[in-house]
Amino acid sequence: MSFGDRLAGVFDSHGRLCVGIDPHEHLLEAWGLTASASGVREFGLAVVEAAAGRVGIVKPQVAFFERYGSAGYAALEEVLAAAREARLLVIADAKRGDIGTSVAAYAEAWLTPGSPLEADAMTISAFQGVGSIAEPVRLAETAGKGLFVLAATSNPEAESIQKAIVSTGPRAGATVARAIIDDVTSINQTQPAQAFGTVGLVLGATVDLSSYGIDTATASAVATPVLAPGFGYQGAQVRDVARLFGSLAGGVIVSESRGLLNAGPRALADAIGNRAAEVRSIDV
Amino acid sequence: MSFGDRLAGVFDSHGRLCVGIDPHEHLLEAWGLTASASGVREFGLAVVEAAAGRVGIVKPQVAFFERYGSAGYAALEEVLAAAREARLLVIADAKRGDIGTSVAAYAEAWLTPGSPLEADAMTISAFQGVGSIAEPVRLAETAGKGLFVLAATSNPEAESIQKAIVSTGPRAGATVARAIIDDVTSINQTQPAQAFGTVGLVLGATVDLSSYGIDTATASAVATPVLAPGFGYQGAQVRDVARLFGSLAGGVIVSESRGLLNAGPRALADAIGNRAAEVRSIDV
Repeated sequence: MSFGDRLAGVFDSHGRLCVGIDPHEHLLEAWGLTASASGVREFGLAVVEAAAGRVGIVKPQVAFFERYGSAGYAALEEVLAAAREARLLVIADAKRGDIGTSVAAYAEAWLTPGSPLEADAMTISAFQGVGSIAEPVRLAETAGKGLFVLAATSNPEAESIQKAIVSTGPRAGATVARAIIDDVTSINQTQPAQAFGTVGLVLGATVDLSSYGIDTATASAVATPVLAPGFGYQGAQVRDVARLFGSLAGGVIVSESRGLLNAGPRALADAIGNRAAEVRSIDV
Repeated sequence: MSFGDRLAGVFDSHGRLCVGIDPHEHLLEAWGLTASASGVREFGLAVVEAAAGRVGIVKPQVAFFERYGSAGYAALEEVLAAAREARLLVIADAKRGDIGTSVAAYAEAWLTPGSPLEADAMTISAFQGVGSIAEPVRLAETAGKGLFVLAATSNPEAESIQKAIVSTGPRAGATVARAIIDDVTSINQTQPAQAFGTVGLVLGATVDLSSYGIDTATASAVATPVLAPGFGYQGAQVRDVARLFGSLAGGVIVSESRGLLNAGPRALADAIGNRAAEVRSIDV
């Protein structure tokens, strides 16, 4: 089964809320856990348990596990396995990027069935060109996995690069973010028909997409998954998804972390359940 | 001691050659090793042993270790420790990038003294803006560590983004690569005087920098370290460093991987020793 079809199934059964697994040091402390591999393991497993059955998607932030080296990765492997065991769709927020055999090795790490770090999808950076991720795209298609390519991120200091105007090649005249979106759409159009394309985008929900030259009124031939941070704590409203994302709205994954995790370990399951119901109740 | 001063010391004692630790699957096979965490561990330790005393800098490619999950990271920890024990300057080629506490966690993983993955410097991607790496810069300065920010990489498909023209803010009109170089230079100018700045650049040696609007005739106030892949196997010549990098030439780290590693485990030490002598003999 393709990643796009599985994503559509998750939207149908659980809605579009995605819970971030972000064991910040201050959250570990608030949860009564140590800033250690064992702390991030317990934190991650607790979020998975609270999320299971209440939402369909979780997104571990890899950096907070990497901080503890191989022991942190061993913790992450347990969290990933528990999440997939609980039938949650897992997006590894790794933001990897490189070229050639190196970027292929990153994709193999996260997208190969049976790999210790197996997830259902990963985030990826195309600073070295969308062409540089051709091999991860091929691996994802083969394995029924997904990719989310950074395009227009929510932090203001990203504008100088993401709004820069492409000066060479077929995308000349477009912003970098727009060129990435068009490249991703082209890739998805070459794939077999499915509910959503294999390659998604990361688009911040707090971003004014039109200021990046992104025309959300134009429907794309293949529905593109959109991982959208910026809801909840960062201020974007789910009722605005259609206005914010236009023709891309149908693929939007509403990603929330701090707003939910701040509920603390005891109240987390209820916070996730309530928020998931709220998100499902809003027609995007 | 700052990273810049340590780098200058290494240039004096061993020259500017850096040996990549890239356990590609095909190299593991050629070396008679398995494609496993144990294979990349043996490969990495063998390269460290061959490099020790013959060059001053090694650069493990993290992707080839990540491929094996936490076991791969445990192997990498051993390789990093062995390299630092052998007084090699270690650049972790991780190309991490993110924002806020996430990118800070990546920097903590690789640059914190005593961390299991401690290296002397790491490569980093600023697709989310050079402003997004402010916290890694602060951590590097505090810990005497270095950063290398991707600017103009050697792969042709990178041009559409790296040659795009910045349209907003103080760098408007510059290419993305040029804007990153100028931002890095500005950061280094705020630091205490040292032989080289804390923040370096990744500039491919096979790249025509002038086509990125990078004027290498302009001397920068602070010497910037430049990690330059593209020598050896990829075709750039060390005797051309002054022509290729102009005023940046003094900071160039000549990075070679396949050209050396193809020598195989028995001939590697000689290959490294000979190449290091050759690189030292060329006046850049």
